[in-house]
Amino acid sequence: MSRFPTRHRPQSRWARHPVARYFPILQWAGDYDRDSLTSDAVAAVIVTIMLIPQSLAYALLAGLPPEMGLYASILPLVAYAIFGTSRALAVGPVAVISLMTAAAVGNMALEGTAEYAMAAITLAFMSGLILTLMGLFRLGFLANFLSHPVIAGFITASGLLIAASQIGTILGISGGGHSMVELLRNLVTNLSQMNPITLVIGVTTTAFLFWVRKGLKPLLIQSGLRPRLADLLAKAGPVAAVAVTTLATWAFGLADRGVAIVGSIPSGLPPLTLPSFGVDIWGQLFVSALLISVIGFVESVSVAQTLAARKRQRIDPDQELVGLGTANIASALSGGYPVTGGFARSVVNYDAGAETPAAGAFTAIGIMLAALLLTPLLHFLPKATLAATIIVAVLSLVDLTILKRSWDYSRIDFAAVATTIAITLGLGVEMGVSAGVILSLALFLYKTSRPHVAEVGLVPGTQHFRNILRHKVETHPALVTLRIDESLYFANARFLEDYVTARVSCDQPIRHVILMCSAVNEIDMSALESLEAINARLRDMGIKLHLSEVKGPVMDRLKRSHFLDALTGQVFLSQYDAMLALTPTVMRGQA
Amino acid sequence: MSRFPTRHRPQSRWARHPVARYFPILQWAGDYDRDSLTSDAVAAVIVTIMLIPQSLAYALLAGLPPEMGLYASILPLVAYAIFGTSRALAVGPVAVISLMTAAAVGNMALEGTAEYAMAAITLAFMSGLILTLMGLFRLGFLANFLSHPVIAGFITASGLLIAASQIGTILGISGGGHSMVELLRNLVTNLSQMNPITLVIGVTTTAFLFWVRKGLKPLLIQSGLRPRLADLLAKAGPVAAVAVTTLATWAFGLADRGVAIVGSIPSGLPPLTLPSFGVDIWGQLFVSALLISVIGFVESVSVAQTLAARKRQRIDPDQELVGLGTANIASALSGGYPVTGGFARSVVNYDAGAETPAAGAFTAIGIMLAALLLTPLLHFLPKATLAATIIVAVLSLVDLTILKRSWDYSRIDFAAVATTIAITLGLGVEMGVSAGVILSLALFLYKTSRPHVAEVGLVPGTQHFRNILRHKVETHPALVTLRIDESLYFANARFLEDYVTARVSCDQPIRHVILMCSAVNEIDMSALESLEAINARLRDMGIKLHLSEVKGPVMDRLKRSHFLDALTGQVFLSQYDAMLALTPTVMRGQA
Repeated sequence: MSRFPTRHRPQSRWARHPVARYFPILQWAGDYDRDSLTSDAVAAVIVTIMLIPQSLAYALLAGLPPEMGLYASILPLVAYAIFGTSRALAVGPVAVISLMTAAAVGNMALEGTAEYAMAAITLAFMSGLILTLMGLFRLGFLANFLSHPVIAGFITASGLLIAASQIGTILGISGGGHSMVELLRNLVTNLSQMNPITLVIGVTTTAFLFWVRKGLKPLLIQSGLRPRLADLLAKAGPVAAVAVTTLATWAFGLADRGVAIVGSIPSGLPPLTLPSFGVDIWGQLFVSALLISVIGFVESVSVAQTLAARKRQRIDPDQELVGLGTANIASALSGGYPVTGGFARSVVNYDAGAETPAAGAFTAIGIMLAALLLTPLLHFLPKATLAATIIVAVLSLVDLTILKRSWDYSRIDFAAVATTIAITLGLGVEMGVSAGVILSLALFLYKTSRPHVAEVGLVPGTQHFRNILRHKVETHPALVTLRIDESLYFANARFLEDYVTARVSCDQPIRHVILMCSAVNEIDMSALESLEAINARLRDMGIKLHLSEVKGPVMDRLKRSHFLDALTGQVFLSQYDAMLALTPTVMRGQA
Repeated sequence: MSRFPTRHRPQSRWARHPVARYFPILQWAGDYDRDSLTSDAVAAVIVTIMLIPQSLAYALLAGLPPEMGLYASILPLVAYAIFGTSRALAVGPVAVISLMTAAAVGNMALEGTAEYAMAAITLAFMSGLILTLMGLFRLGFLANFLSHPVIAGFITASGLLIAASQIGTILGISGGGHSMVELLRNLVTNLSQMNPITLVIGVTTTAFLFWVRKGLKPLLIQSGLRPRLADLLAKAGPVAAVAVTTLATWAFGLADRGVAIVGSIPSGLPPLTLPSFGVDIWGQLFVSALLISVIGFVESVSVAQTLAARKRQRIDPDQELVGLGTANIASALSGGYPVTGGFARSVVNYDAGAETPAAGAFTAIGIMLAALLLTPLLHFLPKATLAATIIVAVLSLVDLTILKRSWDYSRIDFAAVATTIAITLGLGVEMGVSAGVILSLALFLYKTSRPHVAEVGLVPGTQHFRNILRHKVETHPALVTLRIDESLYFANARFLEDYVTARVSCDQPIRHVILMCSAVNEIDMSALESLEAINARLRDMGIKLHLSEVKGPVMDRLKRSHFLDALTGQVFLSQYDAMLALTPTVMRGQA
């Protein structure tokens, strides 16, 4: 495939070129051969079959015309194949991002209008720009500020919101909402609109899909199929449901009896679209675009890392940002809406044997063919069928055990999970994830502002010092050693002042205070002033202040200040040295 | 003075009663005697003389009628005397808070209107409520999130802004602004309004006050006065300037020649006022009230602590919040505006011999007498004289050396100082202090998200381990010890994963990785998942993961998870134990 001679089999000449870092396709395209082609093509066929109903369903979830889901599954996949670093990630519309799109765009325009679709396209473009810029400026670490409890809580709550939003469709009730309260109120208020035939289609399809997932696979394995193949066949369940319910609706004329159908989907290639560049719309969508970018990236990168680890491959998170960013820009330019890497379809892609991102490009061809040829057949597809596929898909996202697990591990993590779930359900996705992030940061800052300080003594027979309350250790009445279990910075500087003053003020024999700094990773300027204040206060009481086990970077900085000149005591390399040096002095002093 | 018999001389019965914690007056009122009364009264006279021109000047700085400055110096002092814990703090209107009041209220109403004054009263009430609630809920630690560099930068920039705002008054130019750009533009645009007589009064007074401060004091000391008395006399300079310029303005009819004067100040006791309780006005003022509360508290508490330390007394920061809060509520109920403890006047109070908060109550009587009797005499007081006293007072707040000092110590602290100064000057006080706080927190989070990790080895002849790059240490090829210099939490969990993977993936002989956790003060749930991922990844590579020197609280938590069951290696009490245990194994393995 490569027009450059390959010297070492697994690495083409371009693969080591610096430019390959920004075009990961160069790292594998040179070695692409017939075997890889076959594997990728097989995977692409399976993912295509899975992706067609999903694309339609998620577009409807986002409040968009179904064809936009197909468009979002064509060019974005090609862009990711060029710029992405994961070999198994399958990008396209996903449930949570579709829900977030609906929440963001729903504030700005009425569903079904051209403005609504334009806002979604603009959202994809902005999100693409944000992701690409984050990648180029290597800001991928920002995603780390979404803690695991916040993500887990957010995904669970989003799954519940999505499922609740689809119940209306299954009942044949229109309307919706962005929070659980709105959704339930809409259901109750409009229950009289319920369409019994839609209900039958929806409930039957949901039950069928659950059975396919839980019952069919074991059955197929019992009948001799390999587990992997059985799994893949079970994944085709939605396609069967789509085919059967569409046929039934057409044959029995159910659309005339009130069953909501997808209707006419324009056939053809994705249109060329341009986002809106209005200052107003960008201002209104910015926060949403940022949240969608970060949530999409975090979800996608964790799937990519999990799958890469299985084959001992590595992905580059910053380049992943560029891959997802260009995918979103491609989506905006071809009539799509925000996309990211999907968990279920990536696993299918991986299990089906995808070897390179080319599988994604082949999937794009499959969806393109569907958009060209298949759409007339989908006219009579009931919306309730798509709602059923969504419900079955998202309920696997819901994991309420995270509440119990976080409670057992730490109350702070539990608070983050519970708050994120409660606010996402109560006030919607954007408030939920924002509250989660802000709360986790606030709790972290709160914790570091009240650091753990342990008084330590020598573990007998060693040179090791531990907490006097937890271990049997040796101490000396004239010597207090305080191990500060936190970096010293502005938020806890005053705390330390108070702590040291309180500790020494009621204890007469103390002559030396040693601050053991093995856990002090930074001393900022505010903390330096506090140390100076402590030093001065102790000096007035006739007590010397010493430091021990100060880390290199911290010591470098202290040497640049005047603190060491004023320090009444010494700085010891190790706490043991400090004990050896100070204990005899003290004894002579007492003698 | 007390109607309760005192058992121990320095502590009355009420002083130990639990209720005394909330009414610090009980801690000293029982022992109050004639000596204390004399000392406090002398101090009160001196502070009163200093406070009269300051109260008028700061009220004008806040854009309020001058009598509101007097009102803010009466009841608030009584409230603080009852609820405050500092024995020397003198509360009342101060320069920075007056500037912040002008900025907050200036957004809502036109200067000179009744709405403007009402907004200032409401601001004092809200600030009082916020402070009192923070005190009752013991939220004083929140003030610690204002780092020293941010405060220093903010005070310096505020001093410059205030001085610039007063230049207009000295030139006889009306109008102003809330940022340096607005102020300078106003000066340049309206330069033609300049009144030469006002200029002469302003410049002469400024020069006189600077001379009093720098020149008079040495002169008085030379002529035999005690330094302390000379200092106090020099503090009376503004009163002399007020008297002379008022007389001159009256005698020469300068008010008719364009010199702006204070004009009629109503005589009488402070009026009883109620704040506005409109939802709108509370919403608009909330952020301002919060900022004023926190800045006022931080300034006040640091003065109080400095003065308390000189006499080995302690103040209670949470009760200080209540003291300042009730002072502000008292101010709002008696026609005043936000107050806090002032640096200069507290030092004067202390130096003049104030022994108890009763000195503040006596000062209140002094100011009350001034409000009753003195105001007609102040009719012809030129505003330029007050502007001169403000300029001389605030220039002592300006300390640009903080830029150099923070640059030398740490770039992060410098960034906080420089940003706070630049944004305060450029966009005003509220944006300035908010930007400073947000930036310091963001930089702290950024730093902790990329922790320092050191590979360590044994310092020969000890049991102590240090960085292999900084010290001559012993290591073993099959053993890598990484000391993580930060708590492990969501923001840096992934960083550690990447770091460990990168370190071991290119180094074949490694059989054991030890994470030395002496500086790890927390492992949150996100970090636990990362440790599990690291453990699994290393296991697949045939490498065991060990932990050493895990702190008690961290170990307790790990024991509540499943991590220790899955851990391929062990947890060692000390790093030395780990080395002893693993090195022979490794050697046998290699033999």
